[in-house]
Amino acid sequence: MACDWFDTHRETLDGAVEASESRAYWSAYPEVPSGRIYGETAKDDGLAAWKSRLGTKFDLGQPGRTSWVSDEASPYGIETGVQYPRSDLDTLLPAVTSASESWRHAEIETRVGVCLEILHRINRRSFEMAFAVMHTTGQGFMMAFQAGGPHAQDRGLEAVAYAWREMTRCPQSAMWSKRVSKTETVTLEKTWRVVPRGIAVNVGCSTFPTWNGYPGIFASLATGNAVIVKPHPGAVLPLALTVEIAREVLTEAGFDPNVVTLACDDFEAPIAQDLVVRPEVGIVDFTGGNTFGDWVEANAMQARVYTEKAGVNSIILDGTDDLRGTTGNIAFSLCLFSGQMCTTPQNIFIPADGIDTPDGPMSFDDAAAAIIKAVDWFVSDPARAAEVLGAIQAEATCKRITEARSGCGTVLRDSTAIENERFPGARTATPLVMQVDVADAAAWQREAFGPIIYVVKTESTDESISLAAETAKTKGALTAAVWSRSDDVLNRAAEALTDAGVATSCNLTGQIWVNQSAAFSDFHVSGGNPAGNATLCDAAFVADRFRFVASRVPVPAAVEAAD
Amino acid sequence: MACDWFDTHRETLDGAVEASESRAYWSAYPEVPSGRIYGETAKDDGLAAWKSRLGTKFDLGQPGRTSWVSDEASPYGIETGVQYPRSDLDTLLPAVTSASESWRHAEIETRVGVCLEILHRINRRSFEMAFAVMHTTGQGFMMAFQAGGPHAQDRGLEAVAYAWREMTRCPQSAMWSKRVSKTETVTLEKTWRVVPRGIAVNVGCSTFPTWNGYPGIFASLATGNAVIVKPHPGAVLPLALTVEIAREVLTEAGFDPNVVTLACDDFEAPIAQDLVVRPEVGIVDFTGGNTFGDWVEANAMQARVYTEKAGVNSIILDGTDDLRGTTGNIAFSLCLFSGQMCTTPQNIFIPADGIDTPDGPMSFDDAAAAIIKAVDWFVSDPARAAEVLGAIQAEATCKRITEARSGCGTVLRDSTAIENERFPGARTATPLVMQVDVADAAAWQREAFGPIIYVVKTESTDESISLAAETAKTKGALTAAVWSRSDDVLNRAAEALTDAGVATSCNLTGQIWVNQSAAFSDFHVSGGNPAGNATLCDAAFVADRFRFVASRVPVPAAVEAAD
Repeated sequence: MACDWFDTHRETLDGAVEASESRAYWSAYPEVPSGRIYGETAKDDGLAAWKSRLGTKFDLGQPGRTSWVSDEASPYGIETGVQYPRSDLDTLLPAVTSASESWRHAEIETRVGVCLEILHRINRRSFEMAFAVMHTTGQGFMMAFQAGGPHAQDRGLEAVAYAWREMTRCPQSAMWSKRVSKTETVTLEKTWRVVPRGIAVNVGCSTFPTWNGYPGIFASLATGNAVIVKPHPGAVLPLALTVEIAREVLTEAGFDPNVVTLACDDFEAPIAQDLVVRPEVGIVDFTGGNTFGDWVEANAMQARVYTEKAGVNSIILDGTDDLRGTTGNIAFSLCLFSGQMCTTPQNIFIPADGIDTPDGPMSFDDAAAAIIKAVDWFVSDPARAAEVLGAIQAEATCKRITEARSGCGTVLRDSTAIENERFPGARTATPLVMQVDVADAAAWQREAFGPIIYVVKTESTDESISLAAETAKTKGALTAAVWSRSDDVLNRAAEALTDAGVATSCNLTGQIWVNQSAAFSDFHVSGGNPAGNATLCDAAFVADRFRFVASRVPVPAAVEAAD
Repeated sequence: MACDWFDTHRETLDGAVEASESRAYWSAYPEVPSGRIYGETAKDDGLAAWKSRLGTKFDLGQPGRTSWVSDEASPYGIETGVQYPRSDLDTLLPAVTSASESWRHAEIETRVGVCLEILHRINRRSFEMAFAVMHTTGQGFMMAFQAGGPHAQDRGLEAVAYAWREMTRCPQSAMWSKRVSKTETVTLEKTWRVVPRGIAVNVGCSTFPTWNGYPGIFASLATGNAVIVKPHPGAVLPLALTVEIAREVLTEAGFDPNVVTLACDDFEAPIAQDLVVRPEVGIVDFTGGNTFGDWVEANAMQARVYTEKAGVNSIILDGTDDLRGTTGNIAFSLCLFSGQMCTTPQNIFIPADGIDTPDGPMSFDDAAAAIIKAVDWFVSDPARAAEVLGAIQAEATCKRITEARSGCGTVLRDSTAIENERFPGARTATPLVMQVDVADAAAWQREAFGPIIYVVKTESTDESISLAAETAKTKGALTAAVWSRSDDVLNRAAEALTDAGVATSCNLTGQIWVNQSAAFSDFHVSGGNPAGNATLCDAAFVADRFRFVASRVPVPAAVEAAD
């Protein structure tokens, strides 16, 4: 049955491999939440499925359960109350090790087929997943559907495609013949096995649990490693559903379901520090804040660690041919999911003497005001605001806004709550925009996660470029966006920023934003600055999750002669 | 000129890429030290060139020279007395950083062309290199020529081939078009740059400075990183020649020669610990002992660290169809370069009730005696012994032999010096063979670098397999060799050992030995056990030395429509 899945999904796999090479637009899983694609009753079914979980125990049938934890709370203010198993690691890890035996020895095609089937089934449950993502992360429904569903599935598929390519780069066997003297030739038959590293631990984040989790989960799984998913205590359900589906597929394929397990904890008694340093753990994928990410990098020495942390992203505003298109584009980037994306811009560098427009120079104050006006427009309509901003995942983010407001600089635009008609209890906040000087680096040169934006007045665009690049090198950055009417400025900015490992977007207007990172085309996080040590996805993200290990045996001369 | 080199050597590059995929036998650089290949006077010229260095200062014209160091001593007991520059790192590193600017921005083809030309010129000086390797490492001339010359060059070329493949897997630019609504399509032109990690430091070893050094040096260089070569103080000349040739080629190509520099130290004031943790250093390649290798892995946190350390390699003797072929093969593996290869077997596991032969069972004692007889034969002829054993690189190895002799177990064969007719002052030692019990793990389950062999009496071949695999997992191992008449035993051994990340050879006889690792076919070190965290060479060894970083800009609809 497992092998059928490889054949069933072969076209999808080939498409993914091809797209990851051409890097043109491609997607395996439709991003439009339409009944025509997912089935006329898909949305209602998904909602019902999600609702049926609320207030219940999410039992995965894993070994070593000691108690139940329940720290999830919908940022939209409704009761969810799902309980998850807490496991005794000393019971869980041996069970995972035992389960991994047959998985590590399975054929490459079998493992890849299982991965593709898991992704396929997750895709069919994208509506259910959307509600799970929405009510744990605070994303608006459309984003929760797309980023938590098809886009995350594409990212997972991308990892499978890379794993497939890497595992099949070395033949499974080869004849090696060398003439060692005038009369003698030695022939060896060599056989290579894909040997996985061990158990992979995937430490999830609270804002994009599936999108950030799937690449590591599927890269590890495809390459033969058992995977323990350690979700953020505040965003468990999306990954619990994922694990449940994976276990169902594994079982159908005749594998021990403990190849994929969920290891839950709560805020009071976190387990990640214990888990990632266990000797059985050979791989750790981490998405989250820099403090714990740095700790994992420094302490999980027994494992290969892949981190996606945070950074301080920049906008460099030098000029524009299309002021309205530019400020609208910037404003949407700032508003989207209330700035709770690791790709959201934080600092907007504008020269003190203003920017260049077709109507002549525009002053610093006017340029800043134009951005704020565009932000105000987005949040002016409550329905639009509710969908675009979503809700604030963590109370700590609200505190951060309060602190930033009373910190360095002047408030250009204050953050306020918005009314969410459907969810009156939603925790919301519109963007806070502060104006600061370059000298206030203590404020702007530090990650301020959430809807907190600093407009930094610089001497010149040259200074803007060098501050943005320097910040990326020292504090990390995932994205940068530049607007200019000068090709020279665009080129210099792109060179300085890409040199600092930052994916750089130039002169965006319309339906594309700097925050967006598309599977199969955009590398997410470069690994080239402190925002993370890995990228989603390149060969390096996958190739080190397993080793090719050979056995070789001489082929007798007689056999050789008969060839 | 640099681009010509890419074209000139294109066929070599393509051959290397193809071989690394087929993993069949291939070599770019002839291993036979023949005048017909290298020029009739090549050997004399090489000898003369080497001699002309002796007693002189090796001046590379690098910045920051503070003094001269000279800790090299030929293991063959002759005076060499070459002096090398010690550099002030605070002067050298900024010069390297400055030199790397144009290198990191050079075209991929330009950099690869420069690397291929460096390898080509090194190849033409293989005789000179052979004398340099022989009189620093102690290898016999033939091995010094082959392993220090063409085989090392092949390993360097293999790294260039992998780097080339990885850097060209992502296109330099692509159009990305996505329909974002019924009426609108967004098109982005995306451009990807290869962004290197920073300065690469290559920490060399004393026994195979070029063979183990070239993969990291050329992988880093091709991917745009400047390289600082930090040779072992006892084996500088081979890498000094390499750096000199690299600087000459870089200069001809119009680059700052400080893209490749030599950072020497002496035993009294080593610099590697300071150097590898410098913030400018983004990559460290290390070959050497476990103690310092583990330290580098744990401390050079700012860099991507690739290590090739040491392990405890095993032979499992269960039976053989060809006793003489087997014992001869084992004996040669033990004698070759006096066991100073990281691939040399250390432990020979033989069951207490003996082994299986076509003439019936052979007792443990007889099997051990047969191996010793074969070793005795190799060292019985002084000329053959001198060539096969070479000389002992480090005095510490001789001390280790003395300690092992008086440690656990019984001496089955004592180590003695051999007479080297051409070099009466050579430091030599034939293999010491000790018989120990499984319980004497404190002795045999620890790396004993040099000609020290433990014959371990086990309960059964099953125990032999499990001890060999367990030792590999806990102490590391690079190679294992198994002899058996049973396919089942061979399969079980190969599975257990490859699972433990050990390259495993079965039933070798004739002109092929477990110590040998061929470029383009055999992965050297798996990275899958404590003997190292990387392999020479796979995608993982190269892909993480640089990042693909994108800039993207919208293409106006009009332009798009014209496509």
